[in-house]
Amino acid sequence: MRLAVLTGGGDVPGLNPCIKTLVNRAEENGWQVLGLRRGWAGLLNVDPARPVTEQTAWVEPLTARSVRTIDRSGGTYLHTSRTNPGKVKRSDLPRFLTASAKADDGKPIDCTLHVLKAIAHLGIDVLVPIGGDDTLSYAVRMHREGVRVVTIPKTMDNDVFGTDYCIGFSTAVSRSVEFIHALRTPTGSHERIGVIELFGRYSGETALIAGYLAAVDRTLISEVPFDIERLAALLLKDRADNPSNYALVVVSEGASMIGGERIESGGADAYGHRKLGGIGQLTGEALKKLTGVDIVSQSLAYLMRAGAPDALDRMVAISYANLAIRQIELGQMGRMMALQNGVYTTVPIDTCTSGQKRVDVGELYDSDAYQPRVRHPLGKPLFFY
Amino acid sequence: MRLAVLTGGGDVPGLNPCIKTLVNRAEENGWQVLGLRRGWAGLLNVDPARPVTEQTAWVEPLTARSVRTIDRSGGTYLHTSRTNPGKVKRSDLPRFLTASAKADDGKPIDCTLHVLKAIAHLGIDVLVPIGGDDTLSYAVRMHREGVRVVTIPKTMDNDVFGTDYCIGFSTAVSRSVEFIHALRTPTGSHERIGVIELFGRYSGETALIAGYLAAVDRTLISEVPFDIERLAALLLKDRADNPSNYALVVVSEGASMIGGERIESGGADAYGHRKLGGIGQLTGEALKKLTGVDIVSQSLAYLMRAGAPDALDRMVAISYANLAIRQIELGQMGRMMALQNGVYTTVPIDTCTSGQKRVDVGELYDSDAYQPRVRHPLGKPLFFY
Amino acid sequence: MRLAVLTGGGDVPGLNPCIKTLVNRAEENGWQVLGLRRGWAGLLNVDPARPVTEQTAWVEPLTARSVRTIDRSGGTYLHTSRTNPGKVKRSDLPRFLTASAKADDGKPIDCTLHVLKAIAHLGIDVLVPIGGDDTLSYAVRMHREGVRVVTIPKTMDNDVFGTDYCIGFSTAVSRSVEFIHALRTPTGSHERIGVIELFGRYSGETALIAGYLAAVDRTLISEVPFDIERLAALLLKDRADNPSNYALVVVSEGASMIGGERIESGGADAYGHRKLGGIGQLTGEALKKLTGVDIVSQSLAYLMRAGAPDALDRMVAISYANLAIRQIELGQMGRMMALQNGVYTTVPIDTCTSGQKRVDVGELYDSDAYQPRVRHPLGKPLFFY
Amino acid sequence: MRLAVLTGGGDVPGLNPCIKTLVNRAEENGWQVLGLRRGWAGLLNVDPARPVTEQTAWVEPLTARSVRTIDRSGGTYLHTSRTNPGKVKRSDLPRFLTASAKADDGKPIDCTLHVLKAIAHLGIDVLVPIGGDDTLSYAVRMHREGVRVVTIPKTMDNDVFGTDYCIGFSTAVSRSVEFIHALRTPTGSHERIGVIELFGRYSGETALIAGYLAAVDRTLISEVPFDIERLAALLLKDRADNPSNYALVVVSEGASMIGGERIESGGADAYGHRKLGGIGQLTGEALKKLTGVDIVSQSLAYLMRAGAPDALDRMVAISYANLAIRQIELGQMGRMMALQNGVYTTVPIDTCTSGQKRVDVGELYDSDAYQPRVRHPLGKPLFFY
Repeated sequence: MRLAVLTGGGDVPGLNPCIKTLVNRAEENGWQVLGLRRGWAGLLNVDPARPVTEQTAWVEPLTARSVRTIDRSGGTYLHTSRTNPGKVKRSDLPRFLTASAKADDGKPIDCTLHVLKAIAHLGIDVLVPIGGDDTLSYAVRMHREGVRVVTIPKTMDNDVFGTDYCIGFSTAVSRSVEFIHALRTPTGSHERIGVIELFGRYSGETALIAGYLAAVDRTLISEVPFDIERLAALLLKDRADNPSNYALVVVSEGASMIGGERIESGGADAYGHRKLGGIGQLTGEALKKLTGVDIVSQSLAYLMRAGAPDALDRMVAISYANLAIRQIELGQMGRMMALQNGVYTTVPIDTCTSGQKRVDVGELYDSDAYQPRVRHPLGKPLFFY
Repeated sequence: MRLAVLTGGGDVPGLNPCIKTLVNRAEENGWQVLGLRRGWAGLLNVDPARPVTEQTAWVEPLTARSVRTIDRSGGTYLHTSRTNPGKVKRSDLPRFLTASAKADDGKPIDCTLHVLKAIAHLGIDVLVPIGGDDTLSYAVRMHREGVRVVTIPKTMDNDVFGTDYCIGFSTAVSRSVEFIHALRTPTGSHERIGVIELFGRYSGETALIAGYLAAVDRTLISEVPFDIERLAALLLKDRADNPSNYALVVVSEGASMIGGERIESGGADAYGHRKLGGIGQLTGEALKKLTGVDIVSQSLAYLMRAGAPDALDRMVAISYANLAIRQIELGQMGRMMALQNGVYTTVPIDTCTSGQKRVDVGELYDSDAYQPRVRHPLGKPLFFY
Repeated sequence: MRLAVLTGGGDVPGLNPCIKTLVNRAEENGWQVLGLRRGWAGLLNVDPARPVTEQTAWVEPLTARSVRTIDRSGGTYLHTSRTNPGKVKRSDLPRFLTASAKADDGKPIDCTLHVLKAIAHLGIDVLVPIGGDDTLSYAVRMHREGVRVVTIPKTMDNDVFGTDYCIGFSTAVSRSVEFIHALRTPTGSHERIGVIELFGRYSGETALIAGYLAAVDRTLISEVPFDIERLAALLLKDRADNPSNYALVVVSEGASMIGGERIESGGADAYGHRKLGGIGQLTGEALKKLTGVDIVSQSLAYLMRAGAPDALDRMVAISYANLAIRQIELGQMGRMMALQNGVYTTVPIDTCTSGQKRVDVGELYDSDAYQPRVRHPLGKPLFFY
Repeated sequence: MRLAVLTGGGDVPGLNPCIKTLVNRAEENGWQVLGLRRGWAGLLNVDPARPVTEQTAWVEPLTARSVRTIDRSGGTYLHTSRTNPGKVKRSDLPRFLTASAKADDGKPIDCTLHVLKAIAHLGIDVLVPIGGDDTLSYAVRMHREGVRVVTIPKTMDNDVFGTDYCIGFSTAVSRSVEFIHALRTPTGSHERIGVIELFGRYSGETALIAGYLAAVDRTLISEVPFDIERLAALLLKDRADNPSNYALVVVSEGASMIGGERIESGGADAYGHRKLGGIGQLTGEALKKLTGVDIVSQSLAYLMRAGAPDALDRMVAISYANLAIRQIELGQMGRMMALQNGVYTTVPIDTCTSGQKRVDVGELYDSDAYQPRVRHPLGKPLFFY
């Protein structure tokens, strides 16, 4: 039996313990493991006409010894990419495919046939892609093409549909809570309003949970556009009520202002603002104008997913790997590993493409107060999802 | 409505966010909150003949403002004790109770009648004790005496029966994993065997999960006595297989050696060894004799529960508090807050006294290899309990 | 004897241990300590016509008990401001001064006479201002007006002239090194160029030392404008030479591109870019264009000075406070506490205004390679300054 | 030019950045570097009759690439030992030396002649041993035998004579301060006396500085035996004066009780106590008996030197390496790298054997109050040494 593992999309802490466990368990079973480098790009770039041993830039055999220490670090030992072999730009084609490609019509090229050949060439029996929506959607394609696949969900935004939990979420929250509390010292010392921007393009869940756990004054999520004037009034009150005379607001990267145009009408630099500065800086500038209070503006960004995984991400990463190996032992293919209603389970592999996971605003958010409102935890899983 | 909150037993990180959330939510509802100091000792020492305002050593009104910053620290703002008012030593009786106590027969005294008077004197409508088995078992007594009680489970050992999760467990695991990885540097630099002792008197769950997540070579749990010679042989092999030439074993404080007598037969100091040094030191000494390899011996002990809570402990602590307030709003008394099968729920308050929570050795441990063996995560909750 | 303490300018970790030590040592001597709130604004806003006890927003008596726990946190218990009583905007005048102010000529008002009255009103014998260049320059003014003053230097940029070390520098470096190493995981996983911007408007010392200690590929400092094309070429080579195929460059907030105009020629948004995004984002964008490699762009900003002080900042903060008390005991006024050539000393209070502290480029930096070049440590103090 | 590097004695964080810098700088100069494994044992075990390439267990060529990532971890990449080739036990002789050894007279064997042969066999031009007193004293021997040697001091106890600073000290202090503050939560929650034991067998400097920086109530150092009854009385008062009703005492591993016999008179287990439990546990037990207050007893031990170096240890480690390379470039042999009076310098290599570095009790400690008393920092270097 020969497995192949790949990691795609943004890296998160936890990928390495997951890879290590897959390799260790496979080796115990007497199986081989190939590491495909840079996500799906690994398969795209393997040349079926050349020996595997000459293509170590894209394929690397993994052994218990070679992955022994990787679990101590964040990121992914295998590197990662956002390549989708179903939609390859002509400029991204490996040279050996260029010749056979049809005439350039400006459209992306579907290299799936090639990928299937590469899988055969590598002698892969089962593919284990680890990734978010994009990576996993091509895994669905592979499954439909008849490849034996089991998948493992990861994203720091925790937004893969069909699972309560994706590897990387807990570390993102842990880091955010830690940083938010640390930022109380400059914000409080200067009696300012602190505006802290968190990654979370489509789903505000990291912001929601981090704001909930760090007990910040207000939390702005991607799902609910906010009224900057109401926000300013709330924060002025929060600050006045705080004996240390400061206030904190957490902003999801994907959040948006109601009537944002008005604020950006100042001129040609508005687009630049949005592009470069992000909603956190915009919000900070607007709050400064509306309240007269100085701002501490900080984007947590990559620091939320940099460094080693926290204990919970290790827990789930290792357990998903164990679960995946178990499925393979049982011949249960076409499944995505998942936590649902708080327990480890598996779901059909295409579950992730059958819906969108967003914050359940009605259940978990007060759209008037801009605060998490998690008043009915009964029956909900650990992180309410 | 007037709530009273108390924390009993060993402190854990997470108690303060739990207290803060109870107070904030109560205040939003227009309720009052009394903080009872030092667990059940607070009620034991309140003198019904004196005004509450003169007894601030034992009772303190809590407000959103007074608890505003406590969630940033570990431990418990209210202090804690192991006092059980159902079994009070004569020497621990408050002075005002000494007179009325019956003649000294050497037996502990049941002060429950007094406690009920104290509750009435304080005008407490609902009691919210937060604690482990001991603290919660007296809460059951209160419930049976007709007091309105809802309880919240905490222990770093995660061993309260009836809930998958107790506040404090995740931080204990997080810290342990961090320390274990750090201890690789002295152990590896000297090519030794590292013996790391973890708190966990009756249940080996913290050791089991920490060993699982930190990928140590061997893990010894309270539930399974170990053969020191087999352990020595396994560790010598682990060390030889490790390119850095060291090995790590995690030992639960409550673990025991098979035939420990033999090892301790060296003389009169054996008892002293056991009492002072603990199983970690004993094991280290025995391994040194059997293998000839030097030992790095470290007890994590209080450091596992010192300092601020991690994100997951904040999550559960805040959510249990929200859940408790919800029960009180609904008039659902006599319930313990819990996570079961991965979701937030409540169970009858006396569930905690109806069984013992220990590692499910058959499901989760390999008693020959002295390793976690968590091969069937399917259907299990996040931490397998 | 009555001391008065104030903290001005940007907060840094270490101010609180410094304040605590001053108070404890003063109390041991039987002296009183007043905390002036918000830097020099405290004195500006004290109304000599009203009792001190009514002005607690600006003056707070400090005792060993009231400062007992403050050393565990970063920031400043006393709050801080950038107010300079020698140059007050009319709109910033306290109401009780407005009447007596001369007709508005649009120029800032020198309130020093008032400040001297406030000092007399408060019965202050010795002033202990803690701050950077701006705060300390008004301390020089006070000294010249005959007030008994000893000063303590702080800035995370370590740029107060006359001392090797300012409180806050070590923590800024510690945090930066930690974050830089953490950012290796996302940068490396994606095989990108990481551009990490550090605070340091005028002096590049934090960037220089952090880059030196974290062994990044290139370091850009405020003192040396850089050629973006040469930088791009160097980083491409660094990345190619790195088996993990990534490169890191650290950029001081105050660094600038040679021929920056060219890069910013895109239009009216250029100014917006610079104002909002900072040199880190600009550099990242330019590198992306020149190299085609994706960028991980992260500004460390306030996180460098958020949270608790590290051990070295505690060491110096406590020792400067001890040294200041010693000067006061000896009647040695008009001195700034300092480290010079590696030993604790004091210098005349106006030393800080007699020069500028910048990176000694010739000694410590390779302006061609954009790297620290600290090849002659002999005779230099710990941090080379 | 061929350098050889070795690390001996207890590992500390900072060794790896030091090794890496030596290798990088040597490579820039076009020099070769050999890594000798396990301290002086590396040279002891090299067989001059066999090719170097067959002896990789003891000698490893180091390149910039092979040490690229080691600076991120604590410990030593080269492993370490306490072997002294001047005094080798017969049982520790490598096989190839056994034949030529003289008849067994029970005395250790001086293998220095062999070591000189090994150095010649390896073609070593300059030796760079990194270590504490023991390791460096054999470097003095090598120097006297005519080997070209420059040395670098390290110990977490900071007790190498002739330098203010040894690699590893700052991290030991940083960790200790962090842990001490964390231990406030269990100690305070239970209103106990916390007894925290720190490594430091001969010198109490780590305890002294950690106690000073963490502002604990009392600090017991190796240099000053303490009266347990006076200590108990002081701690009871400290606890009563603390609004949170707890007290903390830090104990150096090498500290001793006056009249310790009395306390240990319980019988034969006393020796076992001392050997196993250490002075921290003993002190805790005695305090419990004398005060009736429960104890939180924690030994920090290896955790003080486990994990990555802090910023200051990186600073000095890298700078000592730079300084060593500079000496070699200049042909300045027989020098130990040092910080003296706060500046980088070098001293004759045998300085370390010409005295003992201990806490200057008269200057820095109050032997009645059991507290650091650092009242005259003027003219002292950063850490007062």
